Amino acid sequence: MTMPFATLTEFRALLAAAPAADATARAGAMARNGQLTKPPGALGRLEDLAIWFAGWQGTDRPRCDHPQVLIFAGNHGVVAQGVSAFPAEVTVQMVANFQAGGAAINQLSRAFGATMAVHALELERPTVDFTTGEAMTEAEVVAALACGWQAVDASTDVLVTGEMGIGNTTPAAALAAALYGGDPAGWVGRGTGVDDAGLARKADAVARGLARHAGALGDPLQVLRCLGGRELAAMAGAMARARVERVPVVLDGFICTAAAAVLERTVPGALDHAVAGHVSAEGGHARLLAALGKEPLLNLGLRLGEGSGAALALGVVKGALACHSGMATFAEAGVSAG
Amino acid sequence: MTMPFATLTEFRALLAAAPAADATARAGAMARNGQLTKPPGALGRLEDLAIWFAGWQGTDRPRCDHPQVLIFAGNHGVVAQGVSAFPAEVTVQMVANFQAGGAAINQLSRAFGATMAVHALELERPTVDFTTGEAMTEAEVVAALACGWQAVDASTDVLVTGEMGIGNTTPAAALAAALYGGDPAGWVGRGTGVDDAGLARKADAVARGLARHAGALGDPLQVLRCLGGRELAAMAGAMARARVERVPVVLDGFICTAAAAVLERTVPGALDHAVAGHVSAEGGHARLLAALGKEPLLNLGLRLGEGSGAALALGVVKGALACHSGMATFAEAGVSAG
Repeated sequence: MTMPFATLTEFRALLAAAPAADATARAGAMARNGQLTKPPGALGRLEDLAIWFAGWQGTDRPRCDHPQVLIFAGNHGVVAQGVSAFPAEVTVQMVANFQAGGAAINQLSRAFGATMAVHALELERPTVDFTTGEAMTEAEVVAALACGWQAVDASTDVLVTGEMGIGNTTPAAALAAALYGGDPAGWVGRGTGVDDAGLARKADAVARGLARHAGALGDPLQVLRCLGGRELAAMAGAMARARVERVPVVLDGFICTAAAAVLERTVPGALDHAVAGHVSAEGGHARLLAALGKEPLLNLGLRLGEGSGAALALGVVKGALACHSGMATFAEAGVSAG
Repeated sequence: MTMPFATLTEFRALLAAAPAADATARAGAMARNGQLTKPPGALGRLEDLAIWFAGWQGTDRPRCDHPQVLIFAGNHGVVAQGVSAFPAEVTVQMVANFQAGGAAINQLSRAFGATMAVHALELERPTVDFTTGEAMTEAEVVAALACGWQAVDASTDVLVTGEMGIGNTTPAAALAAALYGGDPAGWVGRGTGVDDAGLARKADAVARGLARHAGALGDPLQVLRCLGGRELAAMAGAMARARVERVPVVLDGFICTAAAAVLERTVPGALDHAVAGHVSAEGGHARLLAALGKEPLLNLGLRLGEGSGAALALGVVKGALACHSGMATFAEAGVSAG
């Protein structure tokens, strides 16, 4: 594939030119929904979800037959600030676990019929510690965006992006704070399980990063470059591709949502194709979803990453679309419509 | 099968003799959970759910390979009081729709690999209007309990009971009010979509039913007989069988939960094998779950019945058990445990 962008400016232009949902398909799905053998509204959010999917997939009978889970992995210079409960070598170990089929996301992908692939992004070359310099050069962030962009399969009908990267709740919190403002302490959380001192170190690292890169905060893609990480950029690239191709996205937790928020702050509406799969137990996630106006499908206290909460939400998506696309109408079933 | 009960007294005795969960299997699952390749607690409620299933299934690697959805249908004399937005003939029409594969529950059962069967209970012979007499004789309620009891397959590893019965949110509200007290108006809801006048008629019918059968309110099985319906009794019978066989149950909405509550009020602990699949939009459901101390897995505004909310929650169950039973341990994967 020839990459359609080579700079952040070209990436932004692609995102800005992305098409809207298909209003005709959406209207067709609404009409169909009103004829299905159930009282009006009795399937609650499943009905809204199916109609929303219809618009993005451009058909009044949307499907979740080829869901794709993409996992991106990266390492982070900011771990030098003592922000994680696990050592950085766990990133590459977990990549091997994904490849061997042993992680949570492998089980969830299999359970819901999703293909799963993991892309490790230069794990031996962590991003620069954002408290001491810019996390990535423009070439590096563009390469990571391109990795995500290229990873989306042509047959995908629903996309989940997940991540693995020891320390990556800290860059995610930095992105959230940079994009939406507010005290860094309100955006950091315990990640894989840091103690109170670790939590304080995270907030401090985020505050120093914001101060150091104050000049970049007005441009969300520069925020991603200076404060983000390769796996966050790759997730953003994959979700941007999905937006351009009108493939619906199910958002995972805090890190995924922070990457997604970069797109929305870059081009308002760039995240209209995304539904929140769940709200995680990680500190800033509920706040970030509220800022994006996304109501989560699930709230089960997950805080694992890997795309796990979004993959679990594929069950809800599959149920919603199975009902919408498979149910009989009152006329077909010979049922009195009340 | 020879039925192990012929009277309500014998049914109660069976329920009282049901075994507890397997503490050894539960402890084994807890130990396994602590070794899986994820930060402690990072799968949130999925971890608790898997450990709970382990206890009921008696294995440290619980499964959801043979979920069974049982739909029971019944008709109700109390529809004469104007309590439903749909005519009573819809019950038999919807049974045909279930048999033809066109209802929501068919799609959801298929999506999550569940077998589904529908049992129509003497639809041509509605229960007696409970505002004018006892809904069922002892022979009738025992026959309905037995129908449910016998319908549970030996291979079932997770049970969902659902229902269809025009008017049946009114007997469900009567059961809830009889079992837990409180103003009938606080237990009734809009069902398939009654207007304010219909809602008032429902509350009035429940109040008259409670007054008429005041002498039966001290015995939950007599409450079921006098105020319930055949499909509610059949659901209770199936869930009782599951309790005796230690098969975990996923509760559906208000009507299913009202039937389940009869068991718990008959023998405290009789519902320990049941998890709340969802909280529905029907008036009294959240209140009833709170009375039972059950926290729902899903909250998506469903109010369809048919077992639909519980069947949707099978996705969460499948995800939880797939992770627990399929993930690698830190030692197996060679991942540093932090």
